[in-house]
Amino acid sequence: MSVLSDKPVRLYDTTLRDGTQGEGFQLSLLDKLRIAERLDAFGIDYIEGGWPGSNPKDVEFFQEAKKLKLAHAKLAAFGSTRRADTPVEEDPQVRLLLEAETPVVTIFGKSWELHVTEVLRTTVEENRAMIRDTVAYLKKHGREVVYDAEHFFDGYKDSPEHALNALKAAAEGGADCLVLCDTNGGTLPGEVMEIAKAVQEAIPGVPIGIHTHNDCELGVANAVAAVKAGAVQVQGTINGYGERTGNCNLTSVIPILQLKMDLKVVPELEKLRDLSYFVDDVSNNPHFARAAFVGRTAFAHKGGMHVNAVQKLARSYEHIEPGSVGNEQNILVSELSGQSNILMKAEQLGIPLDKGSAEAKTVLQKVKELENEGYAYEAAGGSLELLIRRELGRYEKPFELKEFHTSFRQYRDGHEPVCEATVKLYVGDTGKYTVAEGHGVVNALDNALREALLPFYPEIATVSLVDYKVRIIDGHDATAAKTRVLIVSTDGTENWGTVGVSENIIEASWIALVDGIDLFLQRRK
Amino acid sequence: MSVLSDKPVRLYDTTLRDGTQGEGFQLSLLDKLRIAERLDAFGIDYIEGGWPGSNPKDVEFFQEAKKLKLAHAKLAAFGSTRRADTPVEEDPQVRLLLEAETPVVTIFGKSWELHVTEVLRTTVEENRAMIRDTVAYLKKHGREVVYDAEHFFDGYKDSPEHALNALKAAAEGGADCLVLCDTNGGTLPGEVMEIAKAVQEAIPGVPIGIHTHNDCELGVANAVAAVKAGAVQVQGTINGYGERTGNCNLTSVIPILQLKMDLKVVPELEKLRDLSYFVDDVSNNPHFARAAFVGRTAFAHKGGMHVNAVQKLARSYEHIEPGSVGNEQNILVSELSGQSNILMKAEQLGIPLDKGSAEAKTVLQKVKELENEGYAYEAAGGSLELLIRRELGRYEKPFELKEFHTSFRQYRDGHEPVCEATVKLYVGDTGKYTVAEGHGVVNALDNALREALLPFYPEIATVSLVDYKVRIIDGHDATAAKTRVLIVSTDGTENWGTVGVSENIIEASWIALVDGIDLFLQRRK
Repeated sequence: MSVLSDKPVRLYDTTLRDGTQGEGFQLSLLDKLRIAERLDAFGIDYIEGGWPGSNPKDVEFFQEAKKLKLAHAKLAAFGSTRRADTPVEEDPQVRLLLEAETPVVTIFGKSWELHVTEVLRTTVEENRAMIRDTVAYLKKHGREVVYDAEHFFDGYKDSPEHALNALKAAAEGGADCLVLCDTNGGTLPGEVMEIAKAVQEAIPGVPIGIHTHNDCELGVANAVAAVKAGAVQVQGTINGYGERTGNCNLTSVIPILQLKMDLKVVPELEKLRDLSYFVDDVSNNPHFARAAFVGRTAFAHKGGMHVNAVQKLARSYEHIEPGSVGNEQNILVSELSGQSNILMKAEQLGIPLDKGSAEAKTVLQKVKELENEGYAYEAAGGSLELLIRRELGRYEKPFELKEFHTSFRQYRDGHEPVCEATVKLYVGDTGKYTVAEGHGVVNALDNALREALLPFYPEIATVSLVDYKVRIIDGHDATAAKTRVLIVSTDGTENWGTVGVSENIIEASWIALVDGIDLFLQRRK
Repeated sequence: MSVLSDKPVRLYDTTLRDGTQGEGFQLSLLDKLRIAERLDAFGIDYIEGGWPGSNPKDVEFFQEAKKLKLAHAKLAAFGSTRRADTPVEEDPQVRLLLEAETPVVTIFGKSWELHVTEVLRTTVEENRAMIRDTVAYLKKHGREVVYDAEHFFDGYKDSPEHALNALKAAAEGGADCLVLCDTNGGTLPGEVMEIAKAVQEAIPGVPIGIHTHNDCELGVANAVAAVKAGAVQVQGTINGYGERTGNCNLTSVIPILQLKMDLKVVPELEKLRDLSYFVDDVSNNPHFARAAFVGRTAFAHKGGMHVNAVQKLARSYEHIEPGSVGNEQNILVSELSGQSNILMKAEQLGIPLDKGSAEAKTVLQKVKELENEGYAYEAAGGSLELLIRRELGRYEKPFELKEFHTSFRQYRDGHEPVCEATVKLYVGDTGKYTVAEGHGVVNALDNALREALLPFYPEIATVSLVDYKVRIIDGHDATAAKTRVLIVSTDGTENWGTVGVSENIIEASWIALVDGIDLFLQRRK
């Protein structure tokens, strides 16, 4: 199909276009450019940047994108066929596609008679002409043309003849690839395989691709079924973002193709997890912990029995080597924990415990108590380390807190709000009483605490907060509910998570803040 | 297989057992009993309550569960085969299974030689005896026995002969159903179908079931493949909770079986969404917005073009009728919105707008501005209504805010923390200056605000907060990042969501709090 590569299957990413149709998935121009560079570096073959005809941000993207130095990927501009009863050369939306100056242009057309008559409100004949003309026009201008057959499976189930005729129009126009789209996500894998085969018999010689959605939680399965049936292009998005329930999740399809079907599609699969987190971070979306392959819990073991088996033989409860996708085994500490979890965690922390020892039991007991109060150590290894250190007497109190106070005053006369915090503490016999302002209460507390400790512990100057997360544990009695705060601190080289729980967010934040600095000081001792 | 029903496929729920192996999915005894009742009412055929041999909470569950009046479902106790080299009648774990006094007992055994030798550390022959003896012993005691063949697919791929022999041992023991488990979730749908067929040829006459995991995002697809191959029992969990990436998601499999494969498995599918939310609420887990069928965005339309088409013809971008699973169409307001979204939303709010009208454009413009500041109206219809009212002059200011102040003092001498808020506002020319304490800052502010307004608007006595959510929009500069607060208020009959965004959580909460009461007063006018 293209000069691009001899890959058995090519990856077509539409995170920047279809992905942004998803709720809460918004990208600035800069975000889009950063993601495009990452996708290229990861080895994605096609990057669909946007729909110039739909909004100015996308027009701007393609102007800026010309400056990108992509090593491997081809940029694709997305759009629709010409309007009904309009010569293609006079269609402004089609002109914008050419002005994007991308090597690839992807256009979608209608395959479902229902859409032609009810939504487009034109005739079946005109629809075919719209498809044929637009593809041919873009080919004449030297573009590689990908044709997205919207609603192909629904259209085919409604009338195979009509769906195939619409698709043939694209082939007649010279399309380089015919992409079958399960736009509404309602098709089952068996149907996808059967219909994908039928298309290749009806229209031999033109490569086909697959574009699926996750409305039945089958987006990945449908893409895999199409590849088994001969599809050579897979369209999807990173982390499955997209309209409604989202698009086919490339983050799952890629390792399946490469590890389970022996189709080499990317050079460095071990960068998959980082790519997944990168897209979440750039789009300011929380990471989905249960995500296949890349999720925080994808290789997490909680049940005592499983942990025990995994210790004997990782393969016993892991379908792949976590490192192959850049992930890692994660032993969760929780009420279901056998002692094995604590022992392994302690060993990771360099504080070996003996199985069945009194210490191990005490620590486990303490963890269970605190978890009942709402603490969660799964993402707060720092607080867990402090807990183990305290229980085992491997802890020296670096300072004695006396009191803290925060004040926030909001003026309605346009005066900036004032947020202030005071901290009173002792290091040995020396007392410190400091005050500081901040962007918010927690920031002010952080500043006041540092100011109090710096004279005694100048090394904390290197410590800073990199993440702050709030979770209401019981939303039922609203603001009186318990609040769990997770903080991630860094000293520039290492990160560690700490947790605080309280009926009010300020105290919860304070507990996590103090743990973050306390742990750093313990480790320096 | 059982007297239970003439259903073509029976649903086996393990939310209460395998589900609780998932991170962050913990259930109290009461939670488990409440969920069991809901599962029964929904028409689930088998409810696996827990593993009496693994923890005391589960033993207690089965004692309490005897009092449940289940209309349809059968309770199953879960456990393992007898220990190696121990007579089954002397195995305490097996005895606990009988003492659970459930009509059904499910036991798992090893199918994978690797596990037999490396994890169990016994011989292949003893493993078969363990399976055969345990099944036969439970049958002798009158139980319906479900046999979970752990790691069956991995075992079969390693050695078909060994895997089938282990499974035959269960059949010889008299198992009522042989459940093939993809314990590590690494198997593809094609393999599942092929192996499920091979099993039925090798062991004719015994019904088979399927138990899958989602490690390749194929848990649902693999269950569907097994049903196509003849499986008559599907095991899974509500919302797919479970170890690692979770179990087969019954919330997706059920509508696929019923709506796509014409297999009637539940009497009232339209209760599916409520069941999904119920399990999230009881387990204090956030609802996954992108969940297939039941997610908040499962039928959400954001792209202007799609919204436009959906207005013409819902079927054009919806694979099923949302009401059939108890869900509903949801028009999202966002930067991608065409005017259609605003128009539909306004109409839902009873404030019709004309397409292309100046008002519609102004509102859309305002929404886009605020969304760039971090606002999100998708879950805050209340704030959107206020915005539209203000833009259209359908708004009367009920009070004028002057100033507010909050103070939080934490004492380290064991004295309870003191959290106080003051509010200064005017209603007409009358000023009010109130102070109140609270569990937390927001609670204190809420109390002070109500105290100030009650004399003027006694009707707000009926208004209260039911939910309070905090989201850090940009976690990069930690506590200085922007905070989005979502509040849900109620007057006992109706709920409405409001949103506030600010660099600090107190102001963000304040904005959402005030909007919540403001909207209530506007509607009363």
